[in-house]
Amino acid sequence: MSRTTISHEDGVIYEFTPDLEGVTSVEPGEALTVETIDSLDGAVQSEADVIEAIPEEVNAATGPIAVEGAQPGDVLAVEIEEIRIAEAHGRVITIDGFGLLDDLDHDGIDVDIDAPRTRMTPVSDDGDGELTFEADGTTLEIPIEPVIGTIGVAPATESYTTLVPHDHGGNLDTTDMTGGNTAYFPVFQEDAMLAMGDCKAAMADGEMCGTGSEVSTEIDVTLDVIDEPRASIDRPLVETPDAWKTVASAETLERACELAHTDLLAVLEAEHGFDETDAHMFASLVGGLEISQVVDPLVTVRNAIPKAFLSRPF
Amino acid sequence: MSRTTISHEDGVIYEFTPDLEGVTSVEPGEALTVETIDSLDGAVQSEADVIEAIPEEVNAATGPIAVEGAQPGDVLAVEIEEIRIAEAHGRVITIDGFGLLDDLDHDGIDVDIDAPRTRMTPVSDDGDGELTFEADGTTLEIPIEPVIGTIGVAPATESYTTLVPHDHGGNLDTTDMTGGNTAYFPVFQEDAMLAMGDCKAAMADGEMCGTGSEVSTEIDVTLDVIDEPRASIDRPLVETPDAWKTVASAETLERACELAHTDLLAVLEAEHGFDETDAHMFASLVGGLEISQVVDPLVTVRNAIPKAFLSRPF
Repeated sequence: MSRTTISHEDGVIYEFTPDLEGVTSVEPGEALTVETIDSLDGAVQSEADVIEAIPEEVNAATGPIAVEGAQPGDVLAVEIEEIRIAEAHGRVITIDGFGLLDDLDHDGIDVDIDAPRTRMTPVSDDGDGELTFEADGTTLEIPIEPVIGTIGVAPATESYTTLVPHDHGGNLDTTDMTGGNTAYFPVFQEDAMLAMGDCKAAMADGEMCGTGSEVSTEIDVTLDVIDEPRASIDRPLVETPDAWKTVASAETLERACELAHTDLLAVLEAEHGFDETDAHMFASLVGGLEISQVVDPLVTVRNAIPKAFLSRPF
Repeated sequence: MSRTTISHEDGVIYEFTPDLEGVTSVEPGEALTVETIDSLDGAVQSEADVIEAIPEEVNAATGPIAVEGAQPGDVLAVEIEEIRIAEAHGRVITIDGFGLLDDLDHDGIDVDIDAPRTRMTPVSDDGDGELTFEADGTTLEIPIEPVIGTIGVAPATESYTTLVPHDHGGNLDTTDMTGGNTAYFPVFQEDAMLAMGDCKAAMADGEMCGTGSEVSTEIDVTLDVIDEPRASIDRPLVETPDAWKTVASAETLERACELAHTDLLAVLEAEHGFDETDAHMFASLVGGLEISQVVDPLVTVRNAIPKAFLSRPF
């Protein structure tokens, strides 16, 4: 089966808005390859290229891709088959004014981060799937584990730049957005209007310095529309081989935990006939809360339930 | 080698204080079995036993165990060999005034938790290592994965009830405190004064309802004292087969993340000669932040680094 390719050269967005128009249109079930540019639009090509402040436009998301027939209330499934690194190196950067340790209450913590700084992370030549991080006379090889940083659909009413995660997805910076997993988004607008970019060759849960190893990629995906979901969803979910995970973004990690947890309770109630309290108690025994990122304007958390205890959320 | 047994009947504490006195004294390297009672001191034996409010004394921690020769500035290693469930059932409870969804800002979340409630979780008879959670006509089998909820040493200057986690350990409610892992604590007082209890037969990361499956146990541990650490530590760490993890507790998850992350930077700097900024950037590529619990008076986070990138933190 031939794949349709859509490139960042065909179109990118820097803002998810309710009224996005597709640059291309695909049918559910169609196999796509989505080409993405790195989150800094290629501006950083060596360690001499430092980013003084967050650019007005970051995290270019290739698209929007109109998914024919998707209607508000449906669920859009994005099966992420494979993410290939499309250049010879990624880059990690610090920017003054961004990152976990930037806006620090220094009480009891003695930290002095030197920003801006860029470290290039070359992809190893020998095909063993590693990045090289070299600094201060030390060289370390890091496994390549690609992540789609920004992925989402046209939101319901508000607009969100591609720096912000919210109920439509967006800058979720969630390591589970990787090959072999499937991401699910609520459809708020006709044809869903999917866009993705801001990929990393590797990223820690938390994305503490504000970036992973930012890189351009080719992403093989297959889209599907679930048009009569058992339950509608308010926020994204991600399916891994072993677990279902709700994904929620909010101003604080505590609030994101509350949202990710109550989203999970709803699907446990629907599957098992639990009342809310029993769902709450059961969900306190298996799986649990995970950190996606702690650095974006809203932070992101997920709540995992092993598939043994949830056949399907919708 | 014969094991020394210390039971909750020999002594328990409900507060970690700087001036703890040991109920027993052991030499480094001695193999111990520590018997613990459940976090509610056996008060809940059926679903008719509900807990109206958090008791003044919870999380009885067996000990204190004086570790001969441990001096302030040392590191106490607690190798957790095995945790055996010592009764026929655990119990999950909700208490009004406790748990992630209790003190909820309901803006946008419609939740109504029925507290107090108790669910007994019997240990399955057929020896397959499962708990049964039964409610609302549904029965689910959950793998037994024991956790030591409260484990710590005499603190430096302040006192902390066994409901509170802090730099001395205490109510960390961290799933990595399990068999096969080793926990490390800063030694603040002569002979360290280790105590542990509040075990769970299973617990989700987050402990959202405020408990796991609370249970009495027998814990096989071997203690060791690292008396010339490469670096002193301010807070606990835990070693799993694959990773080192810093563990930090604070009033908010964000602050706990800052502490767990800066603790990790210090050990990465010592191992690799990185400056603080490069340690920060490198740590944003591998491992990452994890949630321990979001319900205690202080919340707890850990930050993981794969062992491939850290031979030893001290």
